[in-house]
Amino acid sequence: MLQKIDHLGIAVKSLDEAIAYYEKALGLSCEKVEEVETQKVRTAFFQVGDTHIELLEPTSEESPIAKFLAKNGEGIHHVAFATDDIDSQLQNAQDAGIKLINQEPVPGAGGKKVAFLHPKSTHGVLTEFCSK
Amino acid sequence: MLQKIDHLGIAVKSLDEAIAYYEKALGLSCEKVEEVETQKVRTAFFQVGDTHIELLEPTSEESPIAKFLAKNGEGIHHVAFATDDIDSQLQNAQDAGIKLINQEPVPGAGGKKVAFLHPKSTHGVLTEFCSK
Repeated sequence: MLQKIDHLGIAVKSLDEAIAYYEKALGLSCEKVEEVETQKVRTAFFQVGDTHIELLEPTSEESPIAKFLAKNGEGIHHVAFATDDIDSQLQNAQDAGIKLINQEPVPGAGGKKVAFLHPKSTHGVLTEFCSK
Repeated sequence: MLQKIDHLGIAVKSLDEAIAYYEKALGLSCEKVEEVETQKVRTAFFQVGDTHIELLEPTSEESPIAKFLAKNGEGIHHVAFATDDIDSQLQNAQDAGIKLINQEPVPGAGGKKVAFLHPKSTHGVLTEFCSK
């Protein structure tokens, strides 16, 4: 079952400029900045209610976020839902005819298990499931 | 102060098909379907944790959502933050140099006051403030 939106991933060109926007213009506080080498990104997290905003800055032109920025410019990249049972959540999506990017959960940041659904199957929203 | 993400607005071509996706593939329950004549959209709401997903289907080619779909296809259209003081939130954003779409709050769905920030000032995310 989906428990909440875990985070909203937003692609940005400059993490420092985007952090300044979220802090000064919106009044949110940056919780942490973290590099995720496997995804070739630097990330910054902000808590809002029971969810988080995750800013994503590419650290290499090979990063999926660099490719997203080149095609779309800055903006929302993905939505991640927290689930208490990622395996049955994935199975349920597959049974409903959804194309999966990850057939099985893979290790994500913070020791979580994550899996992505393909945006062609999800009405244009790159969708992530994640569980602790 | 921003209290939470009030909702995530997602532009879709067919509300019925998108509702079926969110119900069958993700296991969420549609709370209500509502037409908003001023915006020329039909909307469907799903609760997830302390926030909501708002699907938006245009009811006319003049709808801002029809224009968004023609340019971008289906996908996330805006993020709305709930605030306890929309006037000072807007003033704070303006003081930080953010371009406002609404200089003052306007009436929104459900009797709320709403105001939008321009995505050119917000790192590509069409951003809404709303308050009860």
